[in-house]
Amino acid sequence: MDDLGIGQPEVQNPRNVWRIFARNYYLFQGTPTRMWLDYSFQEEFGLTERLSENNADHYYDVIAEKLQTLEFRPRALFERFNLEVLATTDSPLDSLEDHENIRNSGWKARIIPNFRPDSVVDPDFPGFQENVSRLGEQTSEDTKSWRGFLRALRNARERFRREGCTATDHGHPTAETADLNQPEVEKLFSEVLSGKADAGRRELFRAQMLTEMAAMSLDDGLVMQIHPGSVRNHNPALYKRFGRDMGADIPRRTDYVSALQPLLARFGNETNLTVILFTLDESTYSRELAPLAGHYPCLRLGPAWWFHDSPEGMMRFREQVTETAGFYNTVGFNDDTRAFLSIPARHDVARRIDCAFLGRLVAEHRIDEDEAHDVAHALTYRLVKEAYKL
Amino acid sequence: MDDLGIGQPEVQNPRNVWRIFARNYYLFQGTPTRMWLDYSFQEEFGLTERLSENNADHYYDVIAEKLQTLEFRPRALFERFNLEVLATTDSPLDSLEDHENIRNSGWKARIIPNFRPDSVVDPDFPGFQENVSRLGEQTSEDTKSWRGFLRALRNARERFRREGCTATDHGHPTAETADLNQPEVEKLFSEVLSGKADAGRRELFRAQMLTEMAAMSLDDGLVMQIHPGSVRNHNPALYKRFGRDMGADIPRRTDYVSALQPLLARFGNETNLTVILFTLDESTYSRELAPLAGHYPCLRLGPAWWFHDSPEGMMRFREQVTETAGFYNTVGFNDDTRAFLSIPARHDVARRIDCAFLGRLVAEHRIDEDEAHDVAHALTYRLVKEAYKL
Amino acid sequence: MDDLGIGQPEVQNPRNVWRIFARNYYLFQGTPTRMWLDYSFQEEFGLTERLSENNADHYYDVIAEKLQTLEFRPRALFERFNLEVLATTDSPLDSLEDHENIRNSGWKARIIPNFRPDSVVDPDFPGFQENVSRLGEQTSEDTKSWRGFLRALRNARERFRREGCTATDHGHPTAETADLNQPEVEKLFSEVLSGKADAGRRELFRAQMLTEMAAMSLDDGLVMQIHPGSVRNHNPALYKRFGRDMGADIPRRTDYVSALQPLLARFGNETNLTVILFTLDESTYSRELAPLAGHYPCLRLGPAWWFHDSPEGMMRFREQVTETAGFYNTVGFNDDTRAFLSIPARHDVARRIDCAFLGRLVAEHRIDEDEAHDVAHALTYRLVKEAYKL
Repeated sequence: MDDLGIGQPEVQNPRNVWRIFARNYYLFQGTPTRMWLDYSFQEEFGLTERLSENNADHYYDVIAEKLQTLEFRPRALFERFNLEVLATTDSPLDSLEDHENIRNSGWKARIIPNFRPDSVVDPDFPGFQENVSRLGEQTSEDTKSWRGFLRALRNARERFRREGCTATDHGHPTAETADLNQPEVEKLFSEVLSGKADAGRRELFRAQMLTEMAAMSLDDGLVMQIHPGSVRNHNPALYKRFGRDMGADIPRRTDYVSALQPLLARFGNETNLTVILFTLDESTYSRELAPLAGHYPCLRLGPAWWFHDSPEGMMRFREQVTETAGFYNTVGFNDDTRAFLSIPARHDVARRIDCAFLGRLVAEHRIDEDEAHDVAHALTYRLVKEAYKL
Repeated sequence: MDDLGIGQPEVQNPRNVWRIFARNYYLFQGTPTRMWLDYSFQEEFGLTERLSENNADHYYDVIAEKLQTLEFRPRALFERFNLEVLATTDSPLDSLEDHENIRNSGWKARIIPNFRPDSVVDPDFPGFQENVSRLGEQTSEDTKSWRGFLRALRNARERFRREGCTATDHGHPTAETADLNQPEVEKLFSEVLSGKADAGRRELFRAQMLTEMAAMSLDDGLVMQIHPGSVRNHNPALYKRFGRDMGADIPRRTDYVSALQPLLARFGNETNLTVILFTLDESTYSRELAPLAGHYPCLRLGPAWWFHDSPEGMMRFREQVTETAGFYNTVGFNDDTRAFLSIPARHDVARRIDCAFLGRLVAEHRIDEDEAHDVAHALTYRLVKEAYKL
Repeated sequence: MDDLGIGQPEVQNPRNVWRIFARNYYLFQGTPTRMWLDYSFQEEFGLTERLSENNADHYYDVIAEKLQTLEFRPRALFERFNLEVLATTDSPLDSLEDHENIRNSGWKARIIPNFRPDSVVDPDFPGFQENVSRLGEQTSEDTKSWRGFLRALRNARERFRREGCTATDHGHPTAETADLNQPEVEKLFSEVLSGKADAGRRELFRAQMLTEMAAMSLDDGLVMQIHPGSVRNHNPALYKRFGRDMGADIPRRTDYVSALQPLLARFGNETNLTVILFTLDESTYSRELAPLAGHYPCLRLGPAWWFHDSPEGMMRFREQVTETAGFYNTVGFNDDTRAFLSIPARHDVARRIDCAFLGRLVAEHRIDEDEAHDVAHALTYRLVKEAYKL
């Protein structure tokens, strides 16, 4: 997917970019991107002939024209897609003004924020110290002190909750958690604030913050999502040119069993806490995640994520998770797309794969057909609403 | 599987526990537990309608009534299940009195002990030091000395052998082995006996003991089984309340290639030694275990274990192991159930999966049909008897 | 595969060896070895009845007779197999005399060397220091100095290129790369030359040499292949008796994400460099290799290798790699057989598996049938020629 010619002079013109894309469309054969696009072209734009160099201009014209129409405005799509909830991902420093504007506009759609505190709990996040200061200003708390910092986070979570937020999200490099005592954690906090903490101490701080977030979730009811295991900014040239989160994120081996133990030792048996685990390391499905989710009342498994949000990836998830964790320790499907038009395609893929798996279980007499219908509905709808308290 | 409501007041009454279980039976959809139960309900109790809240009382009554009958007594079941051998797992400190009683009762069934020395070779086992002392008393050896300790173990193994034992079993946290020289190992032994050994030294002692056990197996012919890779007692609250082995055991990443090298360097080429390896880390099937078993004459691979003793798990085992290790470096199927009534169900699942795999190989012209019949019989019967010297 | 009785007195006679092999042929059931042999017996020798103890002598006679005929001479086979290119693997110290002889013989076949410098870049290679000296003599460079050593390697690569070489190959224990500065690397080089470098420093030197090889590839256009992750000589008794590369090589867990980062940080975005990665650790397919190859322009993924060069192994490769890396970041199939007669069988297996995968994608409407035909051809032919610049 790397040689689409982006960066060449001819790409100044969007129609030319599109022609290059169409010429290279074959590179996506066998990928979920190809399936999502085919689905969207057909179902949303009525384009049923496969995209190629020959029909690139026709595609371009049809898409450009439709995107101007009223029925392709975001709110029209939201309703046509029959979405019940759409959640954004927001920093604790975000004003959530857009959410308020939507609400004040009279539009009844449920568009809610997710509390994603990486910028103020990860010492490696660009501007971490400044972010912590700003958090203090916004919440009128002294975030130079550990207790003030925690109070500020609680305030921010409460503000999100008032805007409809039901969940937090944590994108850490590993799944490490820690449960330090008060003096230790205060010392650690002042180290990271002063910028003197080394890599190991910064990781320990992130680890401690996951446990703190679980403690707050137990109090305020926000569902906690952990997305660990990505090496961010692997490509320094790309990072230098385009900055954070520009695609050079590569998964690595992730341990959950030892890493989560401190958090689970403290909160694992809480039935009023929901922690949803995701992974980029499929070798953990059967070895670690399914046994953990099968055991601890607070744990649920999120759907196949990112590179694995694909037909083969989803099938491996069900095949490797179900026998130990069952269906009811998973949370159904939620996509994390940034491409609005791909939402129906992604849910279509997820439903087809789950049903293919269920169909095989029925054919092999491992469950009955009426059960399969019921589970299919649970995976598509009920479990999502329950897990995320929607 | 975590929210069955166990611990609530209503569960004082066993019929109520059963009703709760029946109401929550859907939680087991897609798990092997569900298949084993369905099989047992149908084949052993004649209950063919799926268990649910509605028929819970009927199930309860039928099962309660049948369990009172002569044909549901353990010896009747043993014979009805057509079992040739049943092996228990016993500590070297066990008197094996029950085995003697069975023998003296005139019942001809072959019920034999397995030698499981964790309690006297694992310094982290509760009461380790006391256990080693008791071993000394039982065998009239001075287990304070390294040589006396080894003699005591040899004596205990001999006592087991006289009761029909053909195999040992070792449940270590890792697959680490070591081959220390005499002075080193004596120093290490006195450290662990004195309780002064740190975690690394205790692990080294377990590692050394696997190699010592292999040495003894080469002499006395007992087949050696290694079950590594489980983090025991992950949940401290559960451990505090119910103690060891109560379910909070979570697999972790396991290395075999470096870990087993010291043992294999010494005994790997012995054709008179059989070491059967198990794993909870499926990523080692194709990467480590199949190449090791394909290479070393002493090694065999045990069937898919514990969380992987399931249709998908067994199929992955065959798919990932066979191409490198063949069928004849595996030992067929043996279940490790604690639920007596599930034995036929478990063997039924194993046979179906092995035959499904063989059927695919035949359909793809990778083996011939007459070979598949022969391998099916080997996996079900011959290989088990040969591997365990039954 | 370990108990064929090799080493017994009866095996002095080749016909007896063959009889033992035939008697034990069932041990290969389900392995690719069995498929390759069946294919070769049938397609190359016309032996269609399955090999067994009963027909062992007939097989022996037919094969012995055919091997004497003109049509079984290597050059006749080369042409009958319709090979376009055959590449050998050679040390930089090799004279490549055989290649010259072939060329001078007037035979038009394209038989080219691969540049495999392990013997002069791996301090753990037997005779490393002497090899480096000999490299200096051959190239008239002072290989005691770092710059002279690099010049010598460049000279050797140039010599290979003149003999038709298009690729290098690197068989390291890990995928570690390094990018040290000039003074550091000179210090390291003198350490390894003096034999004083410890295991960590020797590994660092191998790591640095991969990056140096990439730098040279960028200049001279040789495609770079990395085959990491094998623990060589795991069995000391075998090593003592038969020496290096005699089969006791066992894969181990391999990291690519951190290991390759230094090399990729420097050359990852080069579109004029091709680095082909192989693995023995299938857990890296979806987690590390596909995301890396999908991201970095210089990377391609080699086919399922060694233990995974098999029907199940190849299918897992496509299933776990395609959705993230597509087909066009892979290089089609190349076998690395040492058994000349197995070449058609191996390519037959690869083509069947790729087509089976493509057929499923078509059946599931994930790609169109005309695309599948095109991809099948690319995987079999075009991608190989492009990737290896043939």
